[in-house]
Amino acid sequence: MSHAINPARRLIGVGVGPGDPELVTLKAARILREADVVLVPATEASAEGPGRAEQIVLAACPDLPGELRRIPFSMAQRRGIGHKRTESWRASADAAIDAFEAGAHTVALATVGDPAVFSTFSYLRGNVEERMPDVEVSLVPGITAMQALATATSTPLVEGREILALVPATVGPEKLGQVLDLVDSVTIYKGGRTLPAVLEQIRSRGRDAVLGTDVSLDSEQLIGLDDVAEGQTLPYFSTVMSAPARTTTGGSL
Amino acid sequence: MSHAINPARRLIGVGVGPGDPELVTLKAARILREADVVLVPATEASAEGPGRAEQIVLAACPDLPGELRRIPFSMAQRRGIGHKRTESWRASADAAIDAFEAGAHTVALATVGDPAVFSTFSYLRGNVEERMPDVEVSLVPGITAMQALATATSTPLVEGREILALVPATVGPEKLGQVLDLVDSVTIYKGGRTLPAVLEQIRSRGRDAVLGTDVSLDSEQLIGLDDVAEGQTLPYFSTVMSAPARTTTGGSL
Repeated sequence: MSHAINPARRLIGVGVGPGDPELVTLKAARILREADVVLVPATEASAEGPGRAEQIVLAACPDLPGELRRIPFSMAQRRGIGHKRTESWRASADAAIDAFEAGAHTVALATVGDPAVFSTFSYLRGNVEERMPDVEVSLVPGITAMQALATATSTPLVEGREILALVPATVGPEKLGQVLDLVDSVTIYKGGRTLPAVLEQIRSRGRDAVLGTDVSLDSEQLIGLDDVAEGQTLPYFSTVMSAPARTTTGGSL
Repeated sequence: MSHAINPARRLIGVGVGPGDPELVTLKAARILREADVVLVPATEASAEGPGRAEQIVLAACPDLPGELRRIPFSMAQRRGIGHKRTESWRASADAAIDAFEAGAHTVALATVGDPAVFSTFSYLRGNVEERMPDVEVSLVPGITAMQALATATSTPLVEGREILALVPATVGPEKLGQVLDLVDSVTIYKGGRTLPAVLEQIRSRGRDAVLGTDVSLDSEQLIGLDDVAEGQTLPYFSTVMSAPARTTTGGSL
């Protein structure tokens, strides 16, 4: 028996950008309005209120015709291993499966940033595809925090023959060091408690950097590397960008 | 004498995404509509018709109130060196300078992809800032070809502890090899005539890849690495994405 794709059931990972509802694409806004059900990740931190993806969706599409549903995506669940983690993904995917079984044709998961870049969508998708192989999965790209930080600081990430990298600090200091040695423009996510060590690695190479939190939102905070005092407590969810120094005349192509 | 920023003169680099007019952000569409003058790069190839940025602008904002002006950004000009190149940038920047001197408050340059990622905006900007220091420069991010290719192939670029890189093939085979050895998810721009050699470097490492041209447009072409025959002529303006192989259950965070 073959599993033919049933075009009547579509699961779409929709990138809603870094935070500013205006940084949603025209396509993302249309898909969100067309979806029968829009899923939004609800983290533990936002148990008493909407998560960031939900805030963006409601601000960009106040006239949302479909149903909005919060699904659990706790950090604990992300950190779990083996059987326990698989079970958690299953529970999250239930919301999509339930919606399809109740007759929904299009289910969208709104995800902060881009659905192909460190996104919760990857976790949901695999489980849904296993359990409901007739679902057609697609992605709508979104602006990443890396791009938002470059915009906020008016900094070109890469020009000419430069190389760009996006690294999660969870790769550890050795690998991060190798990237910093090889690559011209390095943006680092997931610094968390290791941020001081990450900044020290950047500093020790004579590179500059800027830290951004809540980039593109009213609560945006930007801190230059030189303004970080030793022992200073840094925002846990910072994005760190270390782009090449520029002359005003631009680099070579 | 200090050069105070005159908020009445704004130069904005607006990313208009990879090609599909729906992949323009709400903010980019608004800024394009608010601008007194919208500049679009006209390459030699498009001398007889609109370039890609212009096509996107007109499709996303058919009701554009401002004036649309083509500015020269030839490949020859990009490749020029020293004095000659500086002169070419100067000529391109003239369009922005002229618009401001004629009374424009907001001049936008529409740029394919993102204005911080290998963008023509960097070249224009430096020259305008030197000659008219009271101009306030800002950026509006856009979806890159890298993101469009991940979307078109429904491929996660990075998950969990993976590293992402974007490399222009013009860095040469040695540096490209180092990136391919270190980084999980590598996207390569500007392959041009070196595409066969680039693909061979990828293949020799046991990695998979996909080539995309005109991604997100009706003329989109996607070619898997296994489907590339030896000696086959490849589209000059391809984007090459070599992302990690995936299991359907997703990676670890």
